Amino acid sequence: MPANDAYVAVIFTSVRTEHHQGEYAIWASRMDELVREQPGYIEHASARDPLTRFGITVAYFADDASAAAWKQLAEHVEAQRLGREMFYSEYSVRVATVYRSYEFMAPT
Amino acid sequence: MPANDAYVAVIFTSVRTEHHQGEYAIWASRMDELVREQPGYIEHASARDPLTRFGITVAYFADDASAAAWKQLAEHVEAQRLGREMFYSEYSVRVATVYRSYEFMAPT
Repeated sequence: MPANDAYVAVIFTSVRTEHHQGEYAIWASRMDELVREQPGYIEHASARDPLTRFGITVAYFADDASAAAWKQLAEHVEAQRLGREMFYSEYSVRVATVYRSYEFMAPT
Repeated sequence: MPANDAYVAVIFTSVRTEHHQGEYAIWASRMDELVREQPGYIEHASARDPLTRFGITVAYFADDASAAAWKQLAEHVEAQRLGREMFYSEYSVRVATVYRSYEFMAPT
């Protein structure tokens, strides 16, 4: 479990099916909005390759309890159900404690 | 630091510049190959949005020492230098201990 001064990364990798594009766009946009409102939310980012339909989303939370609460939020639970039924052929979720980080930004 | 039974995720997020596409492709392909040969390597995956040029790569290693050794590998150090000089306008690296995971695969 995370140390007190650490934060938590939820790493979501997925392969989109070819179906339900309109419905997926609506749900993805709604989850993108909803996650920002969660207690303990820090930030999140997503990327998907349109050719392979493989994507990665990483969301960061202040602690494990916040990440777990997001997983159990009713509207998100429904999104997960639709994900398994329609949106994704496979996915994985890994929850991890960030213990080191560094950044680069090019001089402008 | 990671527990003995945990493994390590290196989360690399980046924004590609618009330049040096041929050279980037060569280096990205070489790193993709080289990381697989590292002691303690488990797996890795990447996705990039071609419109925003924002991408996420996550590489998994058996332990922190393996992840740290990959960072310091000479050819990878050179790739990082080129990354800062030419390939990326910004990037971040987060190193994290995976402590929970689950997977879904649709029935075929």
